[in-house]
Amino acid sequence: MDFSDFKITIVGLGLIGGSLAMAIRDLKPQKLWAIDRDLNTIKAAEEKGIIDKNDEDCKSMLLNSDLVIIALYPEDTAKFMLNNMESFKTGCLITDTCGLKYDMLLKIKDFLRNDIEFIGGHPMSGKESSGFTSADKAIFYNANYIITPTEQNKEETIIQLEELIVALGCKRPIKMSPKDHDKIIAYTSHLPHLTAVALINCFNNAENLDGLIGGSFRDATRVADINSKLWLELIRLNKENVIDILECFINNLSELKTAISNNDQEKLLDDFKKASSRRKEIG
Amino acid sequence: MDFSDFKITIVGLGLIGGSLAMAIRDLKPQKLWAIDRDLNTIKAAEEKGIIDKNDEDCKSMLLNSDLVIIALYPEDTAKFMLNNMESFKTGCLITDTCGLKYDMLLKIKDFLRNDIEFIGGHPMSGKESSGFTSADKAIFYNANYIITPTEQNKEETIIQLEELIVALGCKRPIKMSPKDHDKIIAYTSHLPHLTAVALINCFNNAENLDGLIGGSFRDATRVADINSKLWLELIRLNKENVIDILECFINNLSELKTAISNNDQEKLLDDFKKASSRRKEIG
Repeated sequence: MDFSDFKITIVGLGLIGGSLAMAIRDLKPQKLWAIDRDLNTIKAAEEKGIIDKNDEDCKSMLLNSDLVIIALYPEDTAKFMLNNMESFKTGCLITDTCGLKYDMLLKIKDFLRNDIEFIGGHPMSGKESSGFTSADKAIFYNANYIITPTEQNKEETIIQLEELIVALGCKRPIKMSPKDHDKIIAYTSHLPHLTAVALINCFNNAENLDGLIGGSFRDATRVADINSKLWLELIRLNKENVIDILECFINNLSELKTAISNNDQEKLLDDFKKASSRRKEIG
Repeated sequence: MDFSDFKITIVGLGLIGGSLAMAIRDLKPQKLWAIDRDLNTIKAAEEKGIIDKNDEDCKSMLLNSDLVIIALYPEDTAKFMLNNMESFKTGCLITDTCGLKYDMLLKIKDFLRNDIEFIGGHPMSGKESSGFTSADKAIFYNANYIITPTEQNKEETIIQLEELIVALGCKRPIKMSPKDHDKIIAYTSHLPHLTAVALINCFNNAENLDGLIGGSFRDATRVADINSKLWLELIRLNKENVIDILECFINNLSELKTAISNNDQEKLLDDFKKASSRRKEIG
């Protein structure tokens, strides 16, 4: 697809927004602008030629943009749309990059104009570091990307977004409902993060673990150095799903504990075999 | 240290035993023999020049060995010592590679001869694959290695084992009591494995997770494809420690669940911050 007619604005030049800017730059859009509260970041991105220089205000950028990608935290994303709803160009597409999709729809449904479209997006890529200085277009290479179109979206707009995502280097995006997305993400992302936190917090400071940690512990706790602000928000906004999956997990662990306590080798073997075969399926 | 006077026998040419044989071969011992119930493995190792050919029986190998490294599962290791106690050379050192150290001492204390020494060892290295065909001396490079000497061991024997371990490419071994080892390993290894099992077993087959899995899930479940036979044994032999740490972990998770349910942001932030700083300490 040819993006040379597109004027694109990215809102938020953090790790994801900055990486998106770098990847989109390669697609040679007519204009690529960015909005960030940190003007030094904007200046740095302009100087590196990642975004086009634009001396006008936020409003005029949005008025001229065919595509706006908002790469902020969930609540800031909704607020940005609310505060700028009058500025978006008729017919434009807005997408976001938040890790939650249903709450956003609830928040924006009352103020989203009828002459513009919103499609939620969730790039399944990241890094342990954050911010524009960590931005790297390679994070999209072969990455999974979920989009959550609704009945309000035109087929051609969905296709446009899909083609952009593929052009970034990602796999063909997976389409699902916002509700399904949030339920699955509670399992595949929120649970492993909470697990890492709970696991490392069993650490008794009296013990010196230096040199006593193997790969399994390191892997299981890799994401324990959590971005508190973002995660408080994600977990609050996905509360019901997170509680459901935590209950399932705690239940599985309690069953294992009981089986170990009772020397119930059959139950343990059963769980181990189930786990082995499921892990192999994931690859 | 010079190993050219040493005759060494490795019992069990699996991943660890095979890798040890490869690494020890480089140290040019006078003789390097191996015992394995699979004669094809012995033949393959001989043909590759990893071990010396030896047409005599197990007994004569042990009678001539200054160092015997037993790389079998925990209960097989104790059985091997019991069944061959009369064959070991006077003054020899026996070490093992099991992931548990205290139970072994209990098992062998009644039959270990006074004229030989045993020092427990635990190389903190491995691979997801197993068996001689996966053996690779590189698994020891810069690896942690724990040894659990007791009051029965002579200082010079302990130093000898330490020097061998460093010569394999490992870091200088960490010395600790068998009981401390097993308690810590319940946390740093057994718990992450059980966590991986319980986490992946929350998977509802009705959901298609293809393309919806990020790094955190993949990391947290990496060891879920568990070697059932070995792990049933490890967990049974370390039952009390495993139950204690599982209780702590389940308790932490339950507290997180309650905090999420009550929107207790303060408790969550507290846990997140504690986890972040502890994870950074590990590096």
